[in-house]
Amino acid sequence: MKQSTLFTKTQKESPADEVSKNAELLIKAGFINKEMAGVYSYLPLGLRVMKKITGIIRDEMNAIGGQEIVMTALQDQALWEKTDRWDDKKVDIWFKTKLKSGSEIGLGWSHEEPLVAIMKNFISSYRDLPTAVYQFQTKFRNETRAKSGIMRCREFVMKDLYSFSRNEAEHEAFYEKAKEAYKNIFKRAGIGHLTYLTFASGGIFSKYSHEFQTVTAAGEDTIYIDEEKGIAVNHEVLTDEVLAQIGTSREKLVEQTAVEVGNIFTLSDRFSKPLGLKFKDENGEEKNVFMGCYGIGPGRLMGTIVETLSDDKGMIWPESVAPFRVHLLALGEDADARDEAEKLYTQLQAQGIEVLFDDRTAVSAGEKFADADLIGIPWRVVISPRSLKDGGVEVKKRTEEKGSVIKIEDFIASLK
Amino acid sequence: MKQSTLFTKTQKESPADEVSKNAELLIKAGFINKEMAGVYSYLPLGLRVMKKITGIIRDEMNAIGGQEIVMTALQDQALWEKTDRWDDKKVDIWFKTKLKSGSEIGLGWSHEEPLVAIMKNFISSYRDLPTAVYQFQTKFRNETRAKSGIMRCREFVMKDLYSFSRNEAEHEAFYEKAKEAYKNIFKRAGIGHLTYLTFASGGIFSKYSHEFQTVTAAGEDTIYIDEEKGIAVNHEVLTDEVLAQIGTSREKLVEQTAVEVGNIFTLSDRFSKPLGLKFKDENGEEKNVFMGCYGIGPGRLMGTIVETLSDDKGMIWPESVAPFRVHLLALGEDADARDEAEKLYTQLQAQGIEVLFDDRTAVSAGEKFADADLIGIPWRVVISPRSLKDGGVEVKKRTEEKGSVIKIEDFIASLK
Repeated sequence: MKQSTLFTKTQKESPADEVSKNAELLIKAGFINKEMAGVYSYLPLGLRVMKKITGIIRDEMNAIGGQEIVMTALQDQALWEKTDRWDDKKVDIWFKTKLKSGSEIGLGWSHEEPLVAIMKNFISSYRDLPTAVYQFQTKFRNETRAKSGIMRCREFVMKDLYSFSRNEAEHEAFYEKAKEAYKNIFKRAGIGHLTYLTFASGGIFSKYSHEFQTVTAAGEDTIYIDEEKGIAVNHEVLTDEVLAQIGTSREKLVEQTAVEVGNIFTLSDRFSKPLGLKFKDENGEEKNVFMGCYGIGPGRLMGTIVETLSDDKGMIWPESVAPFRVHLLALGEDADARDEAEKLYTQLQAQGIEVLFDDRTAVSAGEKFADADLIGIPWRVVISPRSLKDGGVEVKKRTEEKGSVIKIEDFIASLK
Repeated sequence: MKQSTLFTKTQKESPADEVSKNAELLIKAGFINKEMAGVYSYLPLGLRVMKKITGIIRDEMNAIGGQEIVMTALQDQALWEKTDRWDDKKVDIWFKTKLKSGSEIGLGWSHEEPLVAIMKNFISSYRDLPTAVYQFQTKFRNETRAKSGIMRCREFVMKDLYSFSRNEAEHEAFYEKAKEAYKNIFKRAGIGHLTYLTFASGGIFSKYSHEFQTVTAAGEDTIYIDEEKGIAVNHEVLTDEVLAQIGTSREKLVEQTAVEVGNIFTLSDRFSKPLGLKFKDENGEEKNVFMGCYGIGPGRLMGTIVETLSDDKGMIWPESVAPFRVHLLALGEDADARDEAEKLYTQLQAQGIEVLFDDRTAVSAGEKFADADLIGIPWRVVISPRSLKDGGVEVKKRTEEKGSVIKIEDFIASLK
């Protein structure tokens, strides 16, 4: 894409009303727009990152047999009353509204209830199990505080997968697969080295749930990391009994601030029982379906990448989620250098390499460099009369201080 | 995908509470689930169709230079008051809710206001124009009646594009391009032959708007078609003056019931003026940006395809939007025939051909045929001991009564 046609522009000033680094950088670089506290639109560069992230997650969910659907925001009161999650005293993050008829309806903040209602149409026998269903869908949560940029929103896309099994053993087998899929996601998104499988409270359904916690000062959680084992413990379950069970001890643990980028949870019959999701087993005996749920917020993941991988000049996107792979900068008004840049742009596009081409005229080299650093595309490639005189293009990785001039053909070959 | 693993199943009974054919067929075939009147979840087969449809629309919007973003459902009261569209007496389809602070917020039913607010950050000069921005985003409309299945919903995805031009002439040039893009969309989605560019009321901003109306008894509009010219007139603007202007006359017109599958609209300064979206022209003079808007509901388009292209056995998907291209049916329990079917399934997948493989055991041939007709995948391919004895697979198009047996290699070759 040519940057001269991109409708967004970078801003020099930081937004006055943001305290979080992720929102500050993303707004300055034109990736997102704040509609109100905790409510952000995704502009072209931001949406490109979101699509890369959701692509990775979809891939991993499909790999463990997840089937994709999309449920709705509008939620029926009667359904949620059956699980005792309608009352605002029980769940304090509901947004509620009314149909013309006067009936109160809610905006979904999670989707166990409607999915169980759907599955009742399709699950009746052990032959229908196990199965797993997921969606990317917009959740609404009436948060009291929303000051963490895109890491805690009142409206946000969530990937929520739900598993349906015959019994606990079958559930455990899927749960372990999901755990690995989640590890793959954070690794592929470039924050695997900062992200720990963390033992957390399991509620009434299970001994533990598992969070994936990424170490960052922007987080809201405190975790205790056993670096040797590569696991962590959430402060809420930090007891000697728990530490013994998972084979670690207090002296091995290091306290860190972290953000929960994913959560997997055993639900057992918490929802299948009150909503009547049953199946007949091999002996014709009726049983409750055994469930699990598995959540990731792609926006929170994007915000976490910004928080952890930026520097004082701007963002640093891993190639896997970058809005473009190459940022091509044409410097100066020299016609030959401009022609070479246009040619390289065409060549890269022909090879399917995503490139943002800073073809803007009347913008100084300094401004172009500053924009490139702020936007954070992995490879910066400069064409100027000087680079051509030196034999090609100046190639610099966003993570490196200095670039080097290489032949244009060598640069293209290096990207393959 | 193997049908034995698909979590949805077809239903024999029609849903009791649906009066529309599209919802009836889509629910029976397991494409969608009704959450409440006018609110539907998309299950795996339905979501596959939706992705094909949105893919076609995205393609055509990108081709005319549209830049994709995603705005939010939650809407700020103050912004909509500036255009006098907040008051329920002025706009009677708002869903409204409240933040914890008590502030009232709305659920977006259209997005002119928030997009103009965004564009104010980026448009200041004639050099920033023209530009066009679109999204696929969930709209909420508090409809009094919602009895048309997925053709009129209280919650639905809409593609809305907005154009920003320096003046009316520049706007008109883009408007004509958008008109062609819309024609391409309906053609590619398989309902081009039933869809007419229709002159409709332009409101106060323009002489006409243009609707794309598809002829179907399920529609809510009455249009008058000039078949020779390939255009139509909405009953609301059917006057002798209008007919003269567009070069037709009453005797050439045929009355039809139709559904509006798209709408393109000149907005002029209806929103840029009250919200202050201005630019400086070449002479440094400040002017209001000239806008247009362009809407399509992919769900309504999907519903319209079902309404117009089904028969008494079920749905008939055009290849461009079908959930799968091939429905492969293995009949009988014969091991050799089963092996051949598995082999063909693997071969088709290796070639990137999307195939739903009915590998279910203990399901009769009759049931499999009935399901295939209901689901409506374009190519039905049967492998059975008999077809193998006859030399291959029995291939039948969904639109044809009879199939014919051809060699497996020939069938694969025919799909390339």
